[in-house]
Amino acid sequence: MIEALFSSDNIGPKAFRNHPPIPEMKPDFEGETLKCRAAVAWGGKRMSIEMVDVEPPKEGEVRIKILFNALCHTDLAIIDGMKNAQYPTIPGHEATAAVESVGPGVSDFQPGDIVMPLPIPQCKKCEMCLRGDTNLCVESLTCETAVTCTMADGTTRIKCQGKEIFSSFGLSCFSEYTVVKKIALVKINPHAPVDRVCLVGCGLATGYGAAINTAKIKEGDSVAIIGVGCIGLSAVQGAKHCAAKEIICIDRNEEKFQIAEEMGATKCINPLKCPNGKKFSQWFLETIGPVDQSIECVGDKDCMRWAVEIVKKGYGRAVILGIPPEDQEISFSPLLLLEGRTVVGGTIGDWHTVDDLPKLVDKVMNGELETDQMITHRFQLEQLAEAIELMKTGKCIRVVFQMANE
Amino acid sequence: MIEALFSSDNIGPKAFRNHPPIPEMKPDFEGETLKCRAAVAWGGKRMSIEMVDVEPPKEGEVRIKILFNALCHTDLAIIDGMKNAQYPTIPGHEATAAVESVGPGVSDFQPGDIVMPLPIPQCKKCEMCLRGDTNLCVESLTCETAVTCTMADGTTRIKCQGKEIFSSFGLSCFSEYTVVKKIALVKINPHAPVDRVCLVGCGLATGYGAAINTAKIKEGDSVAIIGVGCIGLSAVQGAKHCAAKEIICIDRNEEKFQIAEEMGATKCINPLKCPNGKKFSQWFLETIGPVDQSIECVGDKDCMRWAVEIVKKGYGRAVILGIPPEDQEISFSPLLLLEGRTVVGGTIGDWHTVDDLPKLVDKVMNGELETDQMITHRFQLEQLAEAIELMKTGKCIRVVFQMANE
Repeated sequence: MIEALFSSDNIGPKAFRNHPPIPEMKPDFEGETLKCRAAVAWGGKRMSIEMVDVEPPKEGEVRIKILFNALCHTDLAIIDGMKNAQYPTIPGHEATAAVESVGPGVSDFQPGDIVMPLPIPQCKKCEMCLRGDTNLCVESLTCETAVTCTMADGTTRIKCQGKEIFSSFGLSCFSEYTVVKKIALVKINPHAPVDRVCLVGCGLATGYGAAINTAKIKEGDSVAIIGVGCIGLSAVQGAKHCAAKEIICIDRNEEKFQIAEEMGATKCINPLKCPNGKKFSQWFLETIGPVDQSIECVGDKDCMRWAVEIVKKGYGRAVILGIPPEDQEISFSPLLLLEGRTVVGGTIGDWHTVDDLPKLVDKVMNGELETDQMITHRFQLEQLAEAIELMKTGKCIRVVFQMANE
Repeated sequence: MIEALFSSDNIGPKAFRNHPPIPEMKPDFEGETLKCRAAVAWGGKRMSIEMVDVEPPKEGEVRIKILFNALCHTDLAIIDGMKNAQYPTIPGHEATAAVESVGPGVSDFQPGDIVMPLPIPQCKKCEMCLRGDTNLCVESLTCETAVTCTMADGTTRIKCQGKEIFSSFGLSCFSEYTVVKKIALVKINPHAPVDRVCLVGCGLATGYGAAINTAKIKEGDSVAIIGVGCIGLSAVQGAKHCAAKEIICIDRNEEKFQIAEEMGATKCINPLKCPNGKKFSQWFLETIGPVDQSIECVGDKDCMRWAVEIVKKGYGRAVILGIPPEDQEISFSPLLLLEGRTVVGGTIGDWHTVDDLPKLVDKVMNGELETDQMITHRFQLEQLAEAIELMKTGKCIRVVFQMANE
């Protein structure tokens, strides 16, 4: 069954290779606008691979060469067209990169540094960073939607066919080169396998941190994880790290159950097997019983409702991670709250990105965190449309793109 | 304006009296079924004052004489008819009482003890009590709905016209005598003003604790309190105790604003003044800005949505306390969660009732907690219908009933 997830010969965990050598930097670009390839989303599901102009970094900015970038569900939402997002934009935010050049006032980075772009920056100076109980740096909130925006000065660094291209999450990693704020970048171990640890930038950090930081799983707890994608499997790893006794995975695609079990799931359930006329939560409560925590990784209002309905009275925590279709709302009986349940969300696993993400990269390197089984496909940028199709039909977990020309 | 809340001559804070002497116990009832008056809710809005038979307490139970009992919104919901509640029942759960007699195996209480009945017991033995991070003792969950139920052995202690009367919250304090589990009872200072501290049993503990324990207000925080009833005003006191800088009260009834301000509100807002065509949350965010915490004390789905929409990104906490009409659900955009907001509820202010409620009684006695302004009416049991009407039309805050015959 598992083979369906690995449909080509040279992809999937078995074919996993050491990452190729980091391409040599070309310092002669410095200070100049350079031309490269990028995937441009025009809004309304239109997407094309284009040659774009990437301007040099301004004050406090860094121009980076993207090495590897993985496709995330949020990218699909952006490509399909989000009401509040500004277009055209370049998606991509789960990447590894090398610094190409730095703008004025940037002393922490220099060309050649191996870095990870951060969907949420950590400025360490704003009210939010100083509070300590949130990772949502004020700098991540300066855009109207925090999904696509200009740079801090209100202008953009990438142009295509003369048009300004808005930055997605301030990163736009589906471009061979991009410009980011220095606070949205962190150096990682230069020996890290950049073709695998790119997952740390979003999916892996999100799921793993949701289990540890947001769900606050304790030893011996029972946890239900709804949706077995990259985030769900990373949550499984987080739950295992917390020594959860029961890790119950819920997904309509049973092909993913083997990987889930290999990574730590103690039980896998297909909600499509719920008897006719019975609500899934009711069936779950009757057959398995309420769990201490739930983590929703789908982005569907029904799954969100389940997450709240299946956790225990008194102290159950439902963690909502999925991004639903526009205007879809989460609904549930407030009596579930009165009985002591907590509903909470979070972004990038509540990690303080600059402080914590390099540590997660180290965990991948020392084998504590598993990435290979989640990378089901390795593509080139031209195959983005194919990857989108695989993701929409649930035929992949993560597709990693090699972005740098060798 | 405030006068409208105090419509009779001998009620309200100005007319506040010392509580009458605790009626002498009549030990000759011990072991016998006694007859007394009670308010019986028959379901479907039908309610009548009846003579009922109150059996002696069984193993682990205590028969108490109710001294004072206040009418709570939950009582209205029970009287109006709740789908999952069992009828007939006797409402009432916010009371002070004196022990009349104890059942076998009860050594902690003896006749004459001044006690407070507890809507949530604290057995100190169950999984929930031992966990420490919830006050929802397993014993409070043994009924199907936790609203009306039998005693632990599946039988009832009160009969009316030959019919079994289900206990509401295991208490049924709108009876002159009632039987409760010993774990749903705590001794309070015998010199406590029993005609005022009855509010501690539900409304006061709920609002005050929601601010301190559930919203976790910190010094300098801004908090919005939606609904200025007994719970809302108690939340104002809790916010003041936490040294909140801004305490913004929201209510459609401006008559309550003077009391709210006297108790600590820094601003009061009438949502009916929101400009036509603008959503209240939007108006609030534009004119006041997001707050650190919100506490919903109304039990209305719109107010619940506001509570979630007006708290800050990153770490805002929305506390939902109100009990909505049946089948009404809370709905909001899950993006509010992804941005770091937490939605949480709680019962009886997350206090561990046996441990904490006597301390709140002490706080009333030493003036730290205010009750007088919240008790707008003092009634006899025969006036229950009148009190219900006052509560439904927002013409009272708390109506306290003197239950014991003098």
